[in-house]
Formats: sequence, structure tokens, C-alpha cells
Amino acid sequence: MSAFDLDGYLKERRVLVDAALDRLLPPEPTPPPTVHRAMRYSVLAGGKRLRPILVIAGAEAVGGAAQTVMPTACALELIHTYSLIHDDLPAMDNDDYRRGRLTNHKVFGDAMAILAGDALLTLAFRLIAENAALVKDPRVIRDVVAEIADAAGTGGMVGGQVVDIESEGQAVTVETLEYIHIHKTAALIRGSLRAGVRLAGGDGAAVAAISDAGQSLGLAFQIVDDILDVEGSLEVLGKTAGSDERKQKATYPALHGIEASRREARRLIEETKSRLAVFGGRSAPLCALADYVVERKS
Amino acid sequence: MSAFDLDGYLKERRVLVDAALDRLLPPEPTPPPTVHRAMRYSVLAGGKRLRPILVIAGAEAVGGAAQTVMPTACALELIHTYSLIHDDLPAMDNDDYRRGRLTNHKVFGDAMAILAGDALLTLAFRLIAENAALVKDPRVIRDVVAEIADAAGTGGMVGGQVVDIESEGQAVTVETLEYIHIHKTAALIRGSLRAGVRLAGGDGAAVAAISDAGQSLGLAFQIVDDILDVEGSLEVLGKTAGSDERKQKATYPALHGIEASRREARRLIEETKSRLAVFGGRSAPLCALADYVVERKS
Repeated sequence: MSAFDLDGYLKERRVLVDAALDRLLPPEPTPPPTVHRAMRYSVLAGGKRLRPILVIAGAEAVGGAAQTVMPTACALELIHTYSLIHDDLPAMDNDDYRRGRLTNHKVFGDAMAILAGDALLTLAFRLIAENAALVKDPRVIRDVVAEIADAAGTGGMVGGQVVDIESEGQAVTVETLEYIHIHKTAALIRGSLRAGVRLAGGDGAAVAAISDAGQSLGLAFQIVDDILDVEGSLEVLGKTAGSDERKQKATYPALHGIEASRREARRLIEETKSRLAVFGGRSAPLCALADYVVERKS
Repeated sequence: MSAFDLDGYLKERRVLVDAALDRLLPPEPTPPPTVHRAMRYSVLAGGKRLRPILVIAGAEAVGGAAQTVMPTACALELIHTYSLIHDDLPAMDNDDYRRGRLTNHKVFGDAMAILAGDALLTLAFRLIAENAALVKDPRVIRDVVAEIADAAGTGGMVGGQVVDIESEGQAVTVETLEYIHIHKTAALIRGSLRAGVRLAGGDGAAVAAISDAGQSLGLAFQIVDDILDVEGSLEVLGKTAGSDERKQKATYPALHGIEASRREARRLIEETKSRLAVFGGRSAPLCALADYVVERKS
């Protein structure tokens, strides 16, 4: 393990991200209050803030500062949260708990949960546009909007979600499972890193390197998520454990077993770190984060 | 009435917009096919293409050409269509027909309809970003992304939808009804015009003038929509008539009566046209379109 103080690093950035999210989300009393309450309920419920921290760490890997990418970092958390709100709906995964509290629709009703999700996705792109004021070359905003849209759309997150839902209760091939993981989870994780590098002025080679690292990191992250769903508890996870098996979801452990899944996750993390080597010491936080991804318990 | 050939104008632009939508939406076989089929089903079901044509007419009002704003014109149609797909869901308005055919969830199921809507909203911002390649000053893309996000979010369309849903079955004040109309409908109509003017290089004064015109046009449009819901039929409207009353929706005719509603729509259209006067002959299509908005039967 690295000597890098990851706990301190994560805590410091989480505080910055939480403060920015609180500032950038419309205050509760802003009309119409219900939808703003619903948006804030799910976004400010805590969470690891992994995607925003990846935007920041991506920027830092090429010498950028957290504050210059903060609106986009928050945008990624809004997109992640909107996807959770919609995924949890009765028409989708029908989950009651998320981040240790009742899911959005359980509190605000299905209609408001749908609208709160829509509003978070919309606000995300507004925040990326706002980031123009903080970067040297505002033309890069165009690329970030396009890439985040690709990572979140049918060629990315939504596409993975579609295949995930369509595969429930089906015998799933190794290829389909990899498709789901790469699209549902890895695309947005990679997109976060790419956005950070781009906004901080990284060149094409830096974007390509971070992109490869993001792909293996994202895959490892989802494999560990699957393992935790088998082994975890509501208390630790903040969501109902064992839900993948109950819903007959395609998962890595179901297809390959727990031990092979652990090995594959570790292999992907080593691959991630070797792909980060070109950034030298500036990628120390990302390397430590990669180790954390396989070692985490929630 | 104006001597301008509005029918020819609308037909020509509708053909351009339909071709562009067909080109810009992922083809059906692109994986995962189901969601692309669902997206195309609702977007390519026809429709007036009012918002795209307003983007184009806005550009033309300051001397711009249709093709230079086409990706954004399509983006506005995607946002409009996503909002219809989500509004029609059982958890929301629970409608069975739209644009003369079964609603999206009736064909593809609730989960796919939610995801198709999410994907259309996401793709819309991707298309606005793509528009950068077609304009003189690509920095304007930042403003268009921000303004369309505002027009579509809780300060615009989603906000109007929230209050609309919360007002069902309630006694609604004149102020609340105006809030719903301005946000649910006028915001995106105004946003379409503003985007067209901005992308075509219009200055601050032009943006302000088109904005005022868009506000009154949007209000008139929604009042006429309410009137048509009382007087129309499924055959002409392509959606179930009388649904506002059945759902105890707040409408202009319910509050003010049909005759007063017609008068107010006509007054707003005169206001729209006087606000368009600064654009001279270049706003002839928009003036004719404004007349059409009150005279239309569907």
C-alpha cells in the first residue's frame, strides 16, 4: 500500500464537494419547493462522492486545482444521483433504501422522483457550462459537454442500464456482463477522469492515458460492487444487500465465483496503476484511490 | 392575415428537421436496440416540430441559416419529446395516446420509457455541443447550454410540470395558472427562439427582443392548447381530448371561460408581433407563425 494519506485526501475533497453541491443546488424554498427538496434529499444524503473526486483527481494529475473543476465535479454527482433515483423506481429496480435512507420515490412519490431525476440531469449540464468561467480555454466546455453526454447516454450509462434490465432472470454471457459493467458504471467513471484532465488543460496523450486508466478502474469498481452486494449488509452498504441475486441480476461473482472476481478486480487495479504511471507523482491520489476501490467494504 | 406563405415555409422546414432528427438519432440496430427503437418511436411520430422551427426562425430573424442551427433545433425537439414521454407515464398523467399513436410506455413498458426519456434529454445536450462546429463563435455554445438547461429545468419546464401536478384537483389562483403556463410551456418556446438568435450571432438587444416575443407567444400557445383540449377530438389532436378536465387540471378556459381565453390569446399574439417589429421583414415567418398559433385546430 502507498504511504499517501488517502483518508485525509478523501475527507478534504468530500468536504469541498459537499459544500459546493449545497451551494449549487437550488435552495429548498425556491419555487417550486417540493422538487428542490426531493433533489437535495438524494444528493445531500452523503455517498462517497467518488465521481466528483475523480474529476478533481484527474485535474490534479495534470497540475490543475480542485476549485477550477468544481462545477463539473458536482455535475457528475448529479448525473450519478439522477440515475440512482430513476433506477430505484418501482418500474425499474424497485428499491426501498439507498445511501442508508428511504429511496426518493418512497418519500416524495413516483412522479416527483421522476421529475427530480430529470431536473438533476438537466442541472448537471448547466453546471458544466458554468465551468467555462474557471478554465483557461472555455472552448473545452464543448468537448466536456459532448463527452459527458456520451458517457451518460445510450452509448454509456443508460445503455448499460437497458441491457442490465433486459438481462434480469436471463442466462447472461461473459460478453454481455462486460458490456453492462463497461457501460453502466465504467463509462461515467472514465468520463469523470477525462473531464478533469480536459478542464485542467491536459493534452491528447494525457486524455488517452486517463481514459484507459478510467476504463480498468471503472470495471474493477463494478466487480467489487457486485461482490459487496453478495457479502455486505444494509447497515454497511446503506442499501439492501443481496438485491442482485433476488432480482436475478447478471453479476461477476454469479458468473465467475467470488474468488475469481476478487482476483480480476485486483488485476484491473494493477493495470489502472500502471496506466497512471505517465502522470508521475501527481497521480499518487489516484493510485491510492484505485487500491481503496478493491479494499473498500461499502 | 399576412401574405407570407406559412404553409410552404413550415412544410419545408419540417422536412429539414425530420431528416436531421432521423440522422442525429442513433439508428435502431445500434446496441442496445430497444432503447433506440423507443427513442425513435416517439421522436419520429411526427408532431408540429414547433420548437425546432422556432430555433430556425429565430436564427433567420437575425440573418442566420437553418442548417447552422439544426443540431440545436433537433435538441429542442428531443427535450420536448422526453418531457411528453415522462409526462405520459402512469405515475404522472397516465395517458394512452400521443401524436396519434400509443404512448411510449404503452408500447415499450414503463422502465424503457423512463430510460428513453433520460436518453433523449442527454442526447439533446450532446447535439447542442455539436452545434459548435457550425457557428462563427463557438463560445456561444456555453450560453446556449446554460439557457436551455434553465428553460428545461426547475426554473422552467420541470418547475411548471411540478406545480401542474401538485395543482390537480385543487382550486388554482390566476397567479398559479400563469406560473404553470410560463414555466411548463413558454420557457422552452422562448428558449428555442433565444437559442436561434444567439447561435446566429444576434446581439444582446436582439436576444432581449426575441425573448419578450417568445414569452407572449408561449403563453398564447398554452392558452390555445387548453382551449383545444376542451373543443378538440382524438382524431384531430392525436391525443385524448378532455383530459385536462378529467384530471382536474388547472386551465385557462376553466378559470376564465372559452371566450375570454380566445381574447387573451389574440391579445398576446398582437403583443408578440409588435415585439418582433424590430427585426423588420426577417421576422415575417415568425409573425405568420404567431397568427397560426391562435388559429390552429390541433
